[in-house]
Amino acid sequence: MGAIFLRGNIDVFFNLPSVMIVLGGTLAATLITFPLSEVAHAFRAAGQVFTQKKVNPNDVVRAIIALANISRRQGLVALSKVRTNNIFLKKAMMLIADGAPESLIRQSLRIEIEAMRQRHMRAQDVFRKMGYYAPAFGMLGTLIGLVQMLTQLHDPSSLGPGMAVALITTFYGSLLSSLFFLPIAGKLKNRTLLELINLEIIFEGAVCILENNNPLLIYEKLSSFIPPKLREAYRPEVIGARTDTQHSIAV
Amino acid sequence: MGAIFLRGNIDVFFNLPSVMIVLGGTLAATLITFPLSEVAHAFRAAGQVFTQKKVNPNDVVRAIIALANISRRQGLVALSKVRTNNIFLKKAMMLIADGAPESLIRQSLRIEIEAMRQRHMRAQDVFRKMGYYAPAFGMLGTLIGLVQMLTQLHDPSSLGPGMAVALITTFYGSLLSSLFFLPIAGKLKNRTLLELINLEIIFEGAVCILENNNPLLIYEKLSSFIPPKLREAYRPEVIGARTDTQHSIAV
Amino acid sequence: MGAIFLRGNIDVFFNLPSVMIVLGGTLAATLITFPLSEVAHAFRAAGQVFTQKKVNPNDVVRAIIALANISRRQGLVALSKVRTNNIFLKKAMMLIADGAPESLIRQSLRIEIEAMRQRHMRAQDVFRKMGYYAPAFGMLGTLIGLVQMLTQLHDPSSLGPGMAVALITTFYGSLLSSLFFLPIAGKLKNRTLLELINLEIIFEGAVCILENNNPLLIYEKLSSFIPPKLREAYRPEVIGARTDTQHSIAV
Amino acid sequence: MGAIFLRGNIDVFFNLPSVMIVLGGTLAATLITFPLSEVAHAFRAAGQVFTQKKVNPNDVVRAIIALANISRRQGLVALSKVRTNNIFLKKAMMLIADGAPESLIRQSLRIEIEAMRQRHMRAQDVFRKMGYYAPAFGMLGTLIGLVQMLTQLHDPSSLGPGMAVALITTFYGSLLSSLFFLPIAGKLKNRTLLELINLEIIFEGAVCILENNNPLLIYEKLSSFIPPKLREAYRPEVIGARTDTQHSIAV
Amino acid sequence: MGAIFLRGNIDVFFNLPSVMIVLGGTLAATLITFPLSEVAHAFRAAGQVFTQKKVNPNDVVRAIIALANISRRQGLVALSKVRTNNIFLKKAMMLIADGAPESLIRQSLRIEIEAMRQRHMRAQDVFRKMGYYAPAFGMLGTLIGLVQMLTQLHDPSSLGPGMAVALITTFYGSLLSSLFFLPIAGKLKNRTLLELINLEIIFEGAVCILENNNPLLIYEKLSSFIPPKLREAYRPEVIGARTDTQHSIAV
Repeated sequence: MGAIFLRGNIDVFFNLPSVMIVLGGTLAATLITFPLSEVAHAFRAAGQVFTQKKVNPNDVVRAIIALANISRRQGLVALSKVRTNNIFLKKAMMLIADGAPESLIRQSLRIEIEAMRQRHMRAQDVFRKMGYYAPAFGMLGTLIGLVQMLTQLHDPSSLGPGMAVALITTFYGSLLSSLFFLPIAGKLKNRTLLELINLEIIFEGAVCILENNNPLLIYEKLSSFIPPKLREAYRPEVIGARTDTQHSIAV
Repeated sequence: MGAIFLRGNIDVFFNLPSVMIVLGGTLAATLITFPLSEVAHAFRAAGQVFTQKKVNPNDVVRAIIALANISRRQGLVALSKVRTNNIFLKKAMMLIADGAPESLIRQSLRIEIEAMRQRHMRAQDVFRKMGYYAPAFGMLGTLIGLVQMLTQLHDPSSLGPGMAVALITTFYGSLLSSLFFLPIAGKLKNRTLLELINLEIIFEGAVCILENNNPLLIYEKLSSFIPPKLREAYRPEVIGARTDTQHSIAV
Repeated sequence: MGAIFLRGNIDVFFNLPSVMIVLGGTLAATLITFPLSEVAHAFRAAGQVFTQKKVNPNDVVRAIIALANISRRQGLVALSKVRTNNIFLKKAMMLIADGAPESLIRQSLRIEIEAMRQRHMRAQDVFRKMGYYAPAFGMLGTLIGLVQMLTQLHDPSSLGPGMAVALITTFYGSLLSSLFFLPIAGKLKNRTLLELINLEIIFEGAVCILENNNPLLIYEKLSSFIPPKLREAYRPEVIGARTDTQHSIAV
Repeated sequence: MGAIFLRGNIDVFFNLPSVMIVLGGTLAATLITFPLSEVAHAFRAAGQVFTQKKVNPNDVVRAIIALANISRRQGLVALSKVRTNNIFLKKAMMLIADGAPESLIRQSLRIEIEAMRQRHMRAQDVFRKMGYYAPAFGMLGTLIGLVQMLTQLHDPSSLGPGMAVALITTFYGSLLSSLFFLPIAGKLKNRTLLELINLEIIFEGAVCILENNNPLLIYEKLSSFIPPKLREAYRPEVIGARTDTQHSIAV
Repeated sequence: MGAIFLRGNIDVFFNLPSVMIVLGGTLAATLITFPLSEVAHAFRAAGQVFTQKKVNPNDVVRAIIALANISRRQGLVALSKVRTNNIFLKKAMMLIADGAPESLIRQSLRIEIEAMRQRHMRAQDVFRKMGYYAPAFGMLGTLIGLVQMLTQLHDPSSLGPGMAVALITTFYGSLLSSLFFLPIAGKLKNRTLLELINLEIIFEGAVCILENNNPLLIYEKLSSFIPPKLREAYRPEVIGARTDTQHSIAV
């Protein structure tokens, strides 16, 4: 079999109509299931998940503690001057600085987290559904090939090659599903889980700042989200030095 | 294979008894599972999902803020005069204007949302079940064809065409499932998720109006339901101008 | 193929040993899984679901409002004299009339609803499991047939008819599953969902009566369970007239 | 086919290596998945589920009401003298008699119920996993047989019997799964659901005794767990007579 | 068949390209789905689950009671001097000794438990996904073999051996899945459930220590997590003697 695989004529695996049936059918079913904008969004999300760096939750914890220090020394209003690229952290700080009621802050941030989770779930769902549709259309392509071949069967010796060609759509469908669509859906799910941890840290941190907890306790609570082996120790001096001067938080 | 697909005799794929077995069996199983009225409702819902425009959640947020402004200036009773085609928003405003206790308003609206979610789920379920039944009856049709063919087998040369015909019901069943029933079920599920967001915005907005929150905070809370990139900024003057004069809310 | 289906010898599909393998195996596996009494109950429930009329939730709402009127005019004790065939409504009214503490009433009714839901789920589960076992034993029957046929294979020409006979158990198993067991399981599930809505209306209605809410608000709350298009409007005079005289509620 | 089944040589279905592959593989995979002690426990539980009688929930309700009467007449301490084989009921009575705080009693009993539910779930899981592994190893055995047969293929006439032998492992695997492992898993699940109802009755009953509810209301609440048709009516005199004299509760 | 299995040429089952397709494909799909660090972590976790001893929950209960005794005699601050290898217990004692607010202690420990559960779930998920990918790539390998074989089919007598070789990847994929990946995933899940019980005991125990419950009641509550047959009786003297002298807890 090594011989077959190595010496085998690999041309037989390139077959445009088979590709068209599998990809076309999968795309058609996907575009009935989801609006085009969501499919496009899912593909963008898939692109980002392989290029964007993960945010280290230790950095998020450190940022929250820095913000807690600012709010303890300069008052909650000082949080409005913080610059950050993280829009969720930005919103949390703005609501606190604006003096919004605690229940409204909690609810708004919860809604943000839940809405974000749902959007990410829909992006995964696009790839999970494609991972389901692709083998289905692969099998449909094989059925088309078999029916055509069996109908026009005059010469038994052509049965082998005909069958080989018919099986290729099943091969494409399964390959696309097992090597691309389902792994990407899984990747998106895993990345979502990690991002949710960072959002939860910000949420719990915002609550701690509102309740004016001391930074060491904030550290104890927030670091619970991080696996013990990856937790950075609590170093108040570093944190104070780095963020007080510029009020700019890099998360 | 390109040749096969392109030159292939496409007539072989039109076969009335096969269609009858797959569609008839699927319909029979579906009508045992669901009352006729629910199947009809599911098909109507499927028709609407491809023709009706989605309501933009930004419009819902803007409408709620407009209503909050009305209630702050003219009192809660003024909400009873609001005209809107959205029956859920209408009910919420009527209950508030009638001075119903807050707990009853919350519970009534929650029941509405949950009951609506269940009804939509049942409509999806009709198509999901059809997506399951169709390939099952496709396979049953193929079994019928195979058994008949094998029983009457006198001439081995007729085996090919007979098998081709028998496989067509499997083809129909899978095609109907993968290209119509399951994508439509998915489409209905996605649309339900979007509609639920609008209902949740109205629910949270009604609670905010009851609690007399200020419009900017209402905007902060309700816009949390919308993806950050699609959020419209808060523009109090536009909102005030457009709705105060006519008391008619287009959502 | 039309010809095959129409002219085909239908006798080949009647095969007693095949029926015995599929039905016997399915029944054996089902009776290991469930006690006989539960299987009998599930079949009775399946019989009822196709013969008993659904209770219209509008009637339940109207009954609750009538009872609310009785309790407001004649006191909670008057509810004990109400005659009704609905044992859940009867229990609710009896507990209220007996002056049981509100928390105990709520908990008792919640337990009733949940216990009823679980019983109905078990009845569905009987059919869902049968829908799983039937194709499994169909396939087992085909394996028995194939093994016997292949072992005794002397004459290749008998292979076709032998295979046809072996495939019939698969046909039976799939047909029973897709046309009977699974649709009945689905039917039972859908009926349960509808009955639960009526129980929830009674539950919420009993709470409203205990809290002495006014009938219009009770109507607003309870009608939320009903799809907007099917809701009957609130007509206080009809309701009062019909129930006050006889104290007999038909739900 | 009747002839095949009835006259068929049944010897072909006894094949030791096939049994060894299916049972050995299933056992190996099961013992990797679960510790030996859990597998042994699951088999003991499966043995008991077919031999032990179910406890009638009516008896449990009656026992609780008897205990409520004892505690009302003789004080909560009297509950410590009650003899019963039900260790959950024993613990509940002991905690009440010891004067433990209500919240601790509730939490302890909840933990007992939940821990018991999890243990029963793991026992079911052993059989459910075996029900999954058995057909998988059946198919693996068939693949082994096919590969060996196809490799050594010199004489086409031996293809039939060889295939028959290879298919037997698939037959074994599916039969074990569909007739033993999965039905036993289902049986354990159903028994667990019934036992949980009895535990819930004891839990709610203990709460009622703590709150000193009157016996009729306790009956109304606890009998809600029982299907209406199977409920025993409330007979205070029988209950009083039987349990007061000996303080021994048979549940 | 015994003969086939025993005398069979076992060499045919060693086939390097087949191994490469199945393992390579599975690994590729897994590394798209998960970051390399998580896959490595999952394999480490799988190694530990077969080598590390389970912690007996009775020991955890005994340790908690010992700590409760220490805190009752020497005050909560004494808990800070306790030495233990269990980092979760250590954190709980440190937070209590530091006088952190009860709500923060509860929340921190809850977050620890939930974060640990999620990490363990991801480790299982690695193996569950591999258990799914392996048979998929096994089937893809067989399709490659079949297509190549059918394309180059000149001599029908080579069909048997060619097919045998093609089937071997399916065999590998299923074997890896059913004998390694899925059982390991199940093992990890079961171990996680056991570890979670120990964490829950520590959590509930920490709450009891905070609430200054007496040791017998703590025993009653915490032993509820342990199956009745495996519970160790409460022996206050043993517990006191062993832990008071050295303040070192072995859990």
